[in-house]
Amino acid sequence: MEPRPATRRGPKPKPDTRDNLLQAGLQMIHAEGYSASGIQGIVDRADVPKGSFYTYFASKEAFGAEVIDLYSERGQIKLRDFLCDRAIAPLARLEAYFDDRIAAFRSSNYVRGCLLGNFSADAADHSTMIRDSLAGHFKAWSRIIENCLLEARDQGAIGREISATSLADFILNSWEGALLRMRAEKSDAPLITFKTMIFGKMLR
Amino acid sequence: MEPRPATRRGPKPKPDTRDNLLQAGLQMIHAEGYSASGIQGIVDRADVPKGSFYTYFASKEAFGAEVIDLYSERGQIKLRDFLCDRAIAPLARLEAYFDDRIAAFRSSNYVRGCLLGNFSADAADHSTMIRDSLAGHFKAWSRIIENCLLEARDQGAIGREISATSLADFILNSWEGALLRMRAEKSDAPLITFKTMIFGKMLR
Repeated sequence: MEPRPATRRGPKPKPDTRDNLLQAGLQMIHAEGYSASGIQGIVDRADVPKGSFYTYFASKEAFGAEVIDLYSERGQIKLRDFLCDRAIAPLARLEAYFDDRIAAFRSSNYVRGCLLGNFSADAADHSTMIRDSLAGHFKAWSRIIENCLLEARDQGAIGREISATSLADFILNSWEGALLRMRAEKSDAPLITFKTMIFGKMLR
Repeated sequence: MEPRPATRRGPKPKPDTRDNLLQAGLQMIHAEGYSASGIQGIVDRADVPKGSFYTYFASKEAFGAEVIDLYSERGQIKLRDFLCDRAIAPLARLEAYFDDRIAAFRSSNYVRGCLLGNFSADAADHSTMIRDSLAGHFKAWSRIIENCLLEARDQGAIGREISATSLADFILNSWEGALLRMRAEKSDAPLITFKTMIFGKMLR
């Protein structure tokens, strides 16, 4: 007698369940933080049974790393949209990018900040997987800024005395710090100060 | 018949219980984060019964604000020790302070960062009490840096073209951002880049 085909218990997996979990997780973790976001809350928000979570993700940590990928890749698309636009002078592109981000934080009333920064504060000390993911994504963001600065240097808009790699890292890290202070003050003042110092002093 | 004096249930309160809770809470919250630190974990670490917590603190939020006070006041003592030492040139004091902090993060293997930054990422969006506390403490730290920069300006070590208030805020916020990147990379490179950019470019 032929064996019967194995039957699945529980609902049939839907192809978009994995994406729904990541979208729900991204929203929840960005708003509440990684430590404060439980798997139960994430599956509830995605409207899927809890068992589904472990069908797609080995652990909360692995899920967190994928949430970071999703956030960072989306953010890099926006960053490239601004920084690779050769119709505009390189430093004007960089300034326009930060102006766009400042406007977005004004409309959200200065909450949430940057998910990469939040994970760095909340989880980097406790998870090598998340730390490695963050380091790689920060590096990718820095590279995009660095390439823009190299164009500015080639056009004579900034000097050659400082490494474009260090300058890009410094700009990105200082922005992350400005976002922390923005959340403490619920004000755009730290972001405006960042812009004044970077564009009025550092890049002159 | 005289009424008997009221008897207390539970252990006699010890005058140092409140301090023990704050010390234990500071250690735990700095290592694990505010969201990840439960009241049960804090009372266990302080070796006091859970009921004691609410004898001294109205809520976890009120406790968090006191932990911020404790951390910030200790940190300001160190900051003043370096920045108010008139035997040394103002910018050299500021540089010595950051060198001291970099050495401390090297010996702790780049964990924990700054508690004010961590609370900003983790709790500022969700608690007005904690947000107001953070904003006040950041301002106090900035003021100490600003006073040192004003001395440097009076001695002609830095120019007068940029507001010392904005410069102090920018230095503090950029340091906070460098600490986030330090934790993602487990490396002093972001701290060294911070120093190179601030002392090699910004303050020249």
